[in-house]
Order: sequence, then C-alpha cells, then structure tokens
Amino acid sequence: MSICQLFNTDLPIIQAPMAGVQGCALAVAVSNAGGLGSLPCAMLSTAAIASEIQAIQAQTTRPFNVNFFCHTAPTPNAPKDHAWRALMSAYYSELSLDPTNAAPASARHPFNQEMADLVSQFRPPVVSFHFGLPAPDLLHQVRSCGAKIMSSATTVEEALWLEAQGVDAVIAQGLEAGGHRGMFLTQDLLSQVGTFALLPQIVKAVKTPVIAAGGIADAQGVRAALALGAAGVQVGTAYLLCPEANTSAVHRAALKTDAARVTALTNIYTGRPARGIVNRLMKELGPIHAAAPDFPLASGASAPLRAKAESLGVADFTPLWAGQNVSGCREISAGELTSALASQV
Amino acid sequence: MSICQLFNTDLPIIQAPMAGVQGCALAVAVSNAGGLGSLPCAMLSTAAIASEIQAIQAQTTRPFNVNFFCHTAPTPNAPKDHAWRALMSAYYSELSLDPTNAAPASARHPFNQEMADLVSQFRPPVVSFHFGLPAPDLLHQVRSCGAKIMSSATTVEEALWLEAQGVDAVIAQGLEAGGHRGMFLTQDLLSQVGTFALLPQIVKAVKTPVIAAGGIADAQGVRAALALGAAGVQVGTAYLLCPEANTSAVHRAALKTDAARVTALTNIYTGRPARGIVNRLMKELGPIHAAAPDFPLASGASAPLRAKAESLGVADFTPLWAGQNVSGCREISAGELTSALASQV
Repeated sequence: MSICQLFNTDLPIIQAPMAGVQGCALAVAVSNAGGLGSLPCAMLSTAAIASEIQAIQAQTTRPFNVNFFCHTAPTPNAPKDHAWRALMSAYYSELSLDPTNAAPASARHPFNQEMADLVSQFRPPVVSFHFGLPAPDLLHQVRSCGAKIMSSATTVEEALWLEAQGVDAVIAQGLEAGGHRGMFLTQDLLSQVGTFALLPQIVKAVKTPVIAAGGIADAQGVRAALALGAAGVQVGTAYLLCPEANTSAVHRAALKTDAARVTALTNIYTGRPARGIVNRLMKELGPIHAAAPDFPLASGASAPLRAKAESLGVADFTPLWAGQNVSGCREISAGELTSALASQV
Repeated sequence: MSICQLFNTDLPIIQAPMAGVQGCALAVAVSNAGGLGSLPCAMLSTAAIASEIQAIQAQTTRPFNVNFFCHTAPTPNAPKDHAWRALMSAYYSELSLDPTNAAPASARHPFNQEMADLVSQFRPPVVSFHFGLPAPDLLHQVRSCGAKIMSSATTVEEALWLEAQGVDAVIAQGLEAGGHRGMFLTQDLLSQVGTFALLPQIVKAVKTPVIAAGGIADAQGVRAALALGAAGVQVGTAYLLCPEANTSAVHRAALKTDAARVTALTNIYTGRPARGIVNRLMKELGPIHAAAPDFPLASGASAPLRAKAESLGVADFTPLWAGQNVSGCREISAGELTSALASQV
C-alpha cells in the first residue's frame, strides 16, 4: 500500500520532522503541496504544541503529521554533568562566558499524558514517534483518536518490533539520515546501515508499509527508494534551506559549503548519536565522547557557547544537523520542493 | 552511456573483484551470463595472473575485467610489526602456536611493470584499479592495449580526480560495500558516505559513466541504482555463496547467520579499512586499531591464528569480508544470480 492511500495524501512525500529548525510553516507548505507535512513537538511546551497544531489546522485542510520523542527520561547525574561542563571550560573562557552560568539542558520531554491529551483534543491525522513507541496505554489513546501511527526503525529487529506493536507504517532510517538516530533496541552504532542495505531488508521482513529515509534528496532518489520497495519517502535535509524553515543563518551558511559533505554521528550536543556537519566542537571533543550525559542532558553545557558564537556568526558550537546528501538543498519554497521531489513518481 | 555499450556486455552487471575468495571460475560464469566477470589479481603472482587470464580466455569469448590494487608499497617497520604481533600473543598461546613463527604479510603488490606487461600480452577488454590509479606511464601502457579503464571513488573529489585522469568509468563505492574502501585522496572515514548519498552526488559531478557499488543485492537494488543515475552496478557480496566462488567454509557459514547483518570497517586484518562481518578479533582488537602496520603488512600477524582456527571450523580470526546487505546471498550458480540481478532492468 502506498502511503498516499494510507495517509490520504496526493504525493508519497513526508517532510521529516526536524525539531529546532522548523514549526508549523514548513508543515503547512508541504501538506498544501500534497505531501505530508510534519510538526516536531519534542522541544515544544504543551501550550506551544497546541498553538502550532491550531495554526496548521487554520492553514490547511490536508493531512499532517505530529511527531514526538519517546525516549526514557534520564536520571539527573550532577557529577557527570559537572565533569562534562568542565570539559568545555576553555571554550567558556575563550568566549568570555561564566561556566557557572551554563544553561539547563534543553527540554526534550518524552511523550506523556499531557501530549496524549493534546492528540485527543486536536486529532492530527498522523502521529509519528522517534526512539521507539510510548507506553501501551498512551499508544492506545493515540490510536483511539483515529491517528495513523508510524515510528523509525534503524535495524530489521526494530522494524519487526514496531510491526508487532501494530504501527501503520515503519520508517526505515538509513545511516545517511540527518539528525538523531531513532535506534531504541540497540545502542551499537555498528548495527546502523545505509539506506541501500536497510530498506530492502526491512521491506522483506515486514508486511507493514515501509517509508524510506536517509540520503533521499531529489526526484531520482524518490524513484530509487520506491524501486527498493518503499511505500513512500521521508525527506528532511533537502528542506533546510526553504524559506518556511527556521534554519539559523550559520546553519544555512554551513549547508551551502563543500564542507557540508562531511558529516558524522555525534553525541556531544545532546547525549544521543545524531548526524550533523562536522564542526569545531565535534572535531575537538568528539564526534562521540563517552562522558556525554544521557540524552538530552548533554545539551546544556554547549548551549551558552552556541548562543554566543552564533551571535558572532560562528557555527563552532552549533549542532548543524544534516544528512550525508545535502545536494538537494535548494532555496525554493517547500511547496515547490515537494512537487519537484515527486516529479518522477 | 550504459556500461553495456561501454564494455560490450548484455547486462549492466559487474561482478566485483574479490581477492582471496574467487578466481577465474566466478569471472567466467558471470561473463558467460552476459555480465562483466572480474578477476582479482592483487594477491596473485604474475604466473598465477597469466594462467588465470588464460583460463578465462579459454572459457569465454565475452568481455571480462582484470583488477589490480595500486596502493603505495609500504616501508617495512620492524618495531611496529613486532608491537603489532605482541598484541596478539595471547591468541597464539590460546591456539598453541609459536608467535615467533608468525607468517609474513600476505603479498598484495601494487600494479607494476610486470603486471602491465601481462596486460599488454593478454589484452583484457577491461582493467579496473582499486586505491586510485597507477603511475601515468603504466596507465598509458594499459590504455594503449585498448582496455577500458575504471577505478573506485569513495568521495566526489576522488571521482573528479579519476575523471581528470581519463578513466572510462568511475565506480561510486558507497559505504555499504564489503571489502576494502578504495579511498585514496583521503584517510578520513567520516568522508565515506552511503550509496544513496554518494552515487547521485558523483553522477552530478562528472560526465564519465558512473557504476554504483555498495548495498546492491537484488534486482530491485539494481533498478534503484539505475534510477539514481548509475550506468551500471558492481555487485560483490551477493556472489559469495555461489558455487563458483572460493569462499571458505567458515565465511560461508557466517554469511548465513543473522550476525552477518552487523559489519564494520576494520584495519586489523590488512592495515587498511575494509568492511567485514564483526568477529572476535575485530571485537577485541578493533575494529580500528591505531597500531596496525601499513597495508598490507598488518596481515601477517593474524594469518597463523586464522589458519589454525579455520582448521577447527572457527572464524574468530578470519576476515569475513561482506557488505551491509547480505540478503542477496544465494546458493545458486553465478550465471543464475547475474540473470536475476538484471531481471528488472
């Protein structure tokens, strides 16, 4: 079954939810173009989630997706946190910042009862999860609202697990993908494989429709993913330069350089492996560091560095999330990009 | 231009040269089925190369490919070599082997005048290189014989460099690929990206026909690679279980397990990063170890361990080269597999 039938969209294109760089505007533009726009809720308060969903519903009658994280909330660990901040003290000095004023970790709450109640209230047509699925009672509440449910699998085992929980679609997240790896049954990065390897293996393993993600940047990529058995595709990186995205100036600038071809999985910005363009902090402290506090607690330490550096136009401490294929990034409207992506379907 | 026109084959399928696990038999079977069979010469003496090429020419009138390495020959470094062997002394004890009897490194000679003279003598229709290209005079000699020339690129920069040297085709070796990374302008593993990201970027960057490699395991994979702009595909891992391959018993057994889904780039077996199924030595010493001697000098230390363990049916010390997608491995003839791979073209 194509995701057009499953989600009632015209095009088999899902705009990947990208927390921190987009809100309702990008989702609305993609949904109005016939794709499935997505609202990332992981970094939003419940009030903000409500107002963003209302904004989407006011601007489109088409289906859209609301995305939540469902990681296990971490246990604060003050010694680990202090040790982590200490590793960055030289950067604080360099930027004339007081390290004792380090920001709290950015709020990234796992899906909870309040969020489930928002889903019940606003009834988004599609709800997607990252890092597994929420507890059965919460998942049941979402399903009861009529929402189609999808989540990311980074291995065949995760795809089989998601299917067993009854998801309506599995997102096969290939290693090329930007942002956080959705891995939840394994922490072993060696288990993470490229889209060409992951997608067909998941397609063979499950009966549920499979959505391809990772490295898909243009119409040929969409066609190739469908040839590999995908029921649709999820594209993130290519949308980062669209005017409807909130991508920061330093992030946009980085995406336009040849250096954007070199990305890495890093845990230094949030505590979980996520793919971004290699920059100074990743080079000097990572890309993977064993002392990083649990997700998302690692994020507080670099936040003041990032804010100060960005104010100077410097991207040294900014997580520049991007996939391995930035060749599809174009400064055109998200609606145009969505149509272009689907032009060879 | 499709590689069918370029190489005068019926099918756009190249069987990847796989040193150590195949000889003329696999190449003959693939060429006779309409693909381009390949003979890996890196580990053969010149006498063996000559007899293998003669065997191919006796058994097929179709085009075939002869493959050579062109790395820089390493400078022997006795202290480094001893330190490396010392890291494995406990394994020697465990297997009741004398560590002072460690084997010399396996011969993997870069392309040289003797090999070029063999090319002049036997005139193979296609010659491919790994790790860049040989010196200009040797390359000129190969070209003068009428051979079409190709080599692997693992980055856009490498593809542009190969095109500037006048190769007839560029192999885009995605990160999913098994065996040695062909990287030659960079040693930075972060520059290595998945086929979905690498292939379209190289296709956009060069005018030369591009061959896709990495993760392609079945007819859908071939179709997807062509959709991404490839002029043909190179497939290795899927052929490893064919009866015409010399794949060892422990290697075949490993390929049939679910554990074969977890591979890594390792330098502990040869000194250069190559992808294989994660096994004991890779887990305990690697997968990447900074003390590994230069390619191919690292190979001597583990060779006696490998031989003894394999005689006991144990794959703990065997390089189990494989790509990230073993789902296409089938115990059918290489001719049948070649036809199946091309069945959706």
